[in-house]
Amino acid sequence: MLTYNIESRGNIPIYVHLYNCIKSDIIKGVIKPDEKLPSKRNLAEHLKVSIMTVQNAYMQLLSEGYIYSRVKSGYFAEALEGNNYTADYKKTEIQDTPPNNDEYFIDFCENSISIDKFPFSVLAKQMREVLCEYSSELLRKIPNSGALKLRKAISDFLYQFRGMSVSPEQVIIGAGTEYLYGLLVKLLGKDKIYAVEDPGYKKIAEIYKSENVICRHIGLDKYGISSKELNNSDADIVHISPSHHFPTGIVMPIKRRQELLSWANDKADRYIIEDDYDSEFRFIGKAIPTMQSIDTKGKVIYINTFSKTISPSIRISYMVLPYNLLTKFKEELGFYSCTVSSFEQYTLAGFIENGYFERHINRMRKEYKLKRDFIIKTIKSSIPRGRAEILEENSGLHFIMKLKTDMSDKEIVYRAKINGIKISCLSQYCFKQDNIGKSMVIINYSGINIEFAQKAIDILARIIS
Amino acid sequence: MLTYNIESRGNIPIYVHLYNCIKSDIIKGVIKPDEKLPSKRNLAEHLKVSIMTVQNAYMQLLSEGYIYSRVKSGYFAEALEGNNYTADYKKTEIQDTPPNNDEYFIDFCENSISIDKFPFSVLAKQMREVLCEYSSELLRKIPNSGALKLRKAISDFLYQFRGMSVSPEQVIIGAGTEYLYGLLVKLLGKDKIYAVEDPGYKKIAEIYKSENVICRHIGLDKYGISSKELNNSDADIVHISPSHHFPTGIVMPIKRRQELLSWANDKADRYIIEDDYDSEFRFIGKAIPTMQSIDTKGKVIYINTFSKTISPSIRISYMVLPYNLLTKFKEELGFYSCTVSSFEQYTLAGFIENGYFERHINRMRKEYKLKRDFIIKTIKSSIPRGRAEILEENSGLHFIMKLKTDMSDKEIVYRAKINGIKISCLSQYCFKQDNIGKSMVIINYSGINIEFAQKAIDILARIIS
Repeated sequence: MLTYNIESRGNIPIYVHLYNCIKSDIIKGVIKPDEKLPSKRNLAEHLKVSIMTVQNAYMQLLSEGYIYSRVKSGYFAEALEGNNYTADYKKTEIQDTPPNNDEYFIDFCENSISIDKFPFSVLAKQMREVLCEYSSELLRKIPNSGALKLRKAISDFLYQFRGMSVSPEQVIIGAGTEYLYGLLVKLLGKDKIYAVEDPGYKKIAEIYKSENVICRHIGLDKYGISSKELNNSDADIVHISPSHHFPTGIVMPIKRRQELLSWANDKADRYIIEDDYDSEFRFIGKAIPTMQSIDTKGKVIYINTFSKTISPSIRISYMVLPYNLLTKFKEELGFYSCTVSSFEQYTLAGFIENGYFERHINRMRKEYKLKRDFIIKTIKSSIPRGRAEILEENSGLHFIMKLKTDMSDKEIVYRAKINGIKISCLSQYCFKQDNIGKSMVIINYSGINIEFAQKAIDILARIIS
Repeated sequence: MLTYNIESRGNIPIYVHLYNCIKSDIIKGVIKPDEKLPSKRNLAEHLKVSIMTVQNAYMQLLSEGYIYSRVKSGYFAEALEGNNYTADYKKTEIQDTPPNNDEYFIDFCENSISIDKFPFSVLAKQMREVLCEYSSELLRKIPNSGALKLRKAISDFLYQFRGMSVSPEQVIIGAGTEYLYGLLVKLLGKDKIYAVEDPGYKKIAEIYKSENVICRHIGLDKYGISSKELNNSDADIVHISPSHHFPTGIVMPIKRRQELLSWANDKADRYIIEDDYDSEFRFIGKAIPTMQSIDTKGKVIYINTFSKTISPSIRISYMVLPYNLLTKFKEELGFYSCTVSSFEQYTLAGFIENGYFERHINRMRKEYKLKRDFIIKTIKSSIPRGRAEILEENSGLHFIMKLKTDMSDKEIVYRAKINGIKISCLSQYCFKQDNIGKSMVIINYSGINIEFAQKAIDILARIIS
């Protein structure tokens, strides 16, 4: 008869202990395949436990398939393969450490934003209001395209501040632009050929590649992506940032926008993805109108994010689909649940509706302009005339500092690095060698600590002199 | 000279009005391509506005590319293509309505959860605490795999309640399982062949198809997915729910689990995706151990969600990668930003750490058991003996009611529908015809209103009699 020490079980229930013992014996082969187990009554008497305890242990073994039952005959051990399937229950240690940036005192590569200027208390107030107002309503499933309240707030915002006439139903909410790019590839087709800007924001090409679609790198001239090169390519979809290109800062003029729209209009399956990621930060005049607003044939998919305007930890982005794609989207991808929780969507909707978002953008625009002006002034006063030229368009959170030096870009980056400065050059964002502009340093200034700017520029001046 | 009515501009700034007028004239061709614009001074005098106003209007036209400048010659109108690119600014009406379910008084198809039983006030308290404790820290970018605090909480939870020894670094947080499936396809390969259960949860096959990978439908026997059929297929990856299969409710016995592990161990690129979506709701005995916990060779990817246990509006899921896939994941997909906001992650981490999650699960398990017992009792007392058989495994949020009737499944569903009852049959979840079990009605009971259960069962009894 099976004999186990019931006393040695510690804190666990008797039936679990008994289940563990029998399971272990079946695994080890102590109880042979198809061997009959003692009847519940007999085992209970033998172990001095209740029949219910044995019953519970047998039921658990039965549910997990360690034993089987035969009507009127009782329970038998299952014949199992091998015995090396009990996992190693050692608890491994956490090895998760944030990337080490200690070697740098200033970082001109990270296009992070100034989160210390964000009115967190206002957002927190909005969050508390949403908690009170909606209460357990927040637990209800929201439409797959996103909460209507937020889509309406975005539609109104786009109308007032970007001159875009967009119905809330055209707005699709998603957890970050990277997720939305993935949805777009599914919508437009994996068999399509996607074109990206060269130079350009590297992550976009990486995402298309990880989506396993063919990706062409189209060169730029001074007006942005080359429409000639695009026309000569086999691309179906082009992904661009006409408001403010990264990293060159080019604002695409209306003529080039028209050329791209003509290109898209030429074939039914051609589309333009307009990535408007930092259009909110234009420092002079009014915002540049979007391509979406001059597209009359449903060829432009507009995409934008709140990660750049509120905080990178807020994972809310959206895209605006033309009507001709909306039906297809609903039919083919409408089953995908929305990736943003209802609470965050209602909070953001309130934040926009109550005017907080607009006020924040306006405040940040001034902040960033001051920061940018300060850095440009520092560069002009610290680097001898003729050795550094600023290329910028009064827009966005980065500009280019063109240096006059014989050093290779690699050397510039390396020398800056050993002096504690993290910089990147335009050449690092180029895919094709012939698109490279030399000695063009990208200055991402939005996230830097301004106190270290003078020191950093002084060092850069010394490096290139 | 250009003449515009400056008075009629309404509320907009003079320079914007002037910019609009000139832009419109260039678009319409009133100002010809390459026509020289008046000098700023002359136009200012002519229109009785300041030079600065004209300057601002010209600068905006210049940034958008409607005009160009020539050194020492002034400004000229750009030659634009056509003129049909001003968008139709009509504001379309909202057409977003929730799906109409008015025709049903009870819905046995929706596997929603009882959100009214969720301790919303506890969650709200946790949210307020996170707001106070973290404050603007919440705006900081979190690691792409998710907040360490949440990954640690999940790792501890899995250790205590699922007997799984998992390091926090193996845990990847994502906005919903659907998003994680997409990541997995990228990780394991688009060239791989994916196998799903037939019958099975339809959305899983839909997602693999929308990811454009080959998807095989493998039949089930009484132990779950057929290992024989799987062995005879060309599948590389198998996606299963061994704890509680939908819709059959099968709990996979240890022997079949071993067979599947053997299958996976046979080739280097084979993996098992263990979808543990409602394992928390087992009503008798202890939870069934996961396949992940008996996998010694890094072949099982465990995946679970909080949408089923907390609320469908909470978009937080996670997967546990074996170490051999972790490096590949970091290298190839590590650049994808986390899709869940920091606030939600810290809130959930606190909710788990403080024991609220466990208490909620325990409470809901009792709730669901009562609901299930009530419905089963109602069925047994209202449908004549021999005409309805309950097939269930004391687990999960659904069971099968096998009816004895000559009616086709289509007819059962239709007759229920015209009587206001939404039901589905097992056959609706089958891909291959020969896998169909007839007259098996799926009872998803977690989200139904119990008050209508008696009426619904009475009607079903009448329909089949």
